Amino acid sequence: MSELFELGRGILEAQPFSVLLGTELASFEPGSAVLALAVRDELRQQHGFVHGGVVSYLADNALTYAGGSVLGDSVTSEYKINYLRPAVGERLEARARVVSSGKKQAVCSCEVFAISEEGERMVAVAQGTISKVDG
Amino acid sequence: MSELFELGRGILEAQPFSVLLGTELASFEPGSAVLALAVRDELRQQHGFVHGGVVSYLADNALTYAGGSVLGDSVTSEYKINYLRPAVGERLEARARVVSSGKKQAVCSCEVFAISEEGERMVAVAQGTISKVDG
Amino acid sequence: MSELFELGRGILEAQPFSVLLGTELASFEPGSAVLALAVRDELRQQHGFVHGGVVSYLADNALTYAGGSVLGDSVTSEYKINYLRPAVGERLEARARVVSSGKKQAVCSCEVFAISEEGERMVAVAQGTISKVDG
Amino acid sequence: MSELFELGRGILEAQPFSVLLGTELASFEPGSAVLALAVRDELRQQHGFVHGGVVSYLADNALTYAGGSVLGDSVTSEYKINYLRPAVGERLEARARVVSSGKKQAVCSCEVFAISEEGERMVAVAQGTISKVDG
Repeated sequence: MSELFELGRGILEAQPFSVLLGTELASFEPGSAVLALAVRDELRQQHGFVHGGVVSYLADNALTYAGGSVLGDSVTSEYKINYLRPAVGERLEARARVVSSGKKQAVCSCEVFAISEEGERMVAVAQGTISKVDG
Repeated sequence: MSELFELGRGILEAQPFSVLLGTELASFEPGSAVLALAVRDELRQQHGFVHGGVVSYLADNALTYAGGSVLGDSVTSEYKINYLRPAVGERLEARARVVSSGKKQAVCSCEVFAISEEGERMVAVAQGTISKVDG
Repeated sequence: MSELFELGRGILEAQPFSVLLGTELASFEPGSAVLALAVRDELRQQHGFVHGGVVSYLADNALTYAGGSVLGDSVTSEYKINYLRPAVGERLEARARVVSSGKKQAVCSCEVFAISEEGERMVAVAQGTISKVDG
Repeated sequence: MSELFELGRGILEAQPFSVLLGTELASFEPGSAVLALAVRDELRQQHGFVHGGVVSYLADNALTYAGGSVLGDSVTSEYKINYLRPAVGERLEARARVVSSGKKQAVCSCEVFAISEEGERMVAVAQGTISKVDG
């Protein structure tokens, strides 16, 4: 396991909200990150689908990780997400990558997939700006 | 309490994820909605601020409520959020309103505030498209 | 006429693309800016409406002006726009304001109106990040 | 030359604003589109770079073309763009593709490149919703 991955896993474990949701770091390399989440009933909305807020949280966090992989300690400044279809499945994966980066900011994109026994379907796509935390 | 408000509160109670987070409907009128959330440790990130994913969830859900107040049963199709500053305080409020609406879609905007004893500060601003659910 | 307004008008005149389109600075104060454009046939798309790219350009530029009014020399880093209805009329106005600003960036919002003899209608709404140019 | 390409070129020629800017359809296939633009002084801003509004127009239009390739007559409902660096070069290309599509809407993404003798550089990335025009 790489040093970067260990660092990333430590940050995730230090986020109480990510612990509450059960988020796992599936991959973390320079320029990309994958966050995964086992779907359980507590994460759903009124129609039985995974709540959009969960999908959005996972995309946001994966964007920060991707940006952070090249910038160091970082936050999401802004992002935009398009929901493509209801999130149905046993597991979500948010796969983010750096599109372009400078010294202080990175623009990243992210695809979120819902995974079930029948395969995986993209359920959302996001794009945003990650900013290095000063100091 | 209005019929619309009762309906809105019922939907929120039917969202397991909103129950998990403790979201409350503070106001729900034709063209606007306010969702509120008491901040607790489980909702934070590694620096002690409310996790961006919580802020984002609340904005997203408030946008859906605002749009739904004029469209009926609705979902968020897409939105964009700018985080303005770390969310610090005892309570979050997402105040959303309809900017423009048609038969099937509404464009809505939302401001999220962090509220403490010292007052309230805007911590995020969002804009998105809400779509009526067919059928 | 204020010094800020004079400065703003000078910048607009120094933008060949804004001169090509005929953009005018209608108002420019700390925290807000209004850009206006007389609609002519060259600015339309195939259905006779003002081309979305024109609406978008005007919103983008107004966002930069609003941000620049508090930051100084600035550029738009990113923005998002929702088109609300076809732009029909004799004149467009993009009215932008600062939502929140720091030393290096400002988050701004903008409403674009199409104005005709019958009145004005909002045709687009935008939100974005304006960044101070270093040096 | 395909029937789709001919159709696309005809639409571009019917857009006075695209004719004013000199936009060309470089590629148009089911699920993707490339629009190109020769850079000339009239398209610049005050620092000599291509005006952001031109980059944005090209991305917006390429998104509509990509969506329209699978939906038929379409408009951009909303999009978001991140500018990555100043647009310097002799030619711009906006390369858009469909990420996901239904009967009435498609979510598309677009990368804009500035091309000079020294090569090409990505200058912007965009993501948006394209909607089929009813009737």
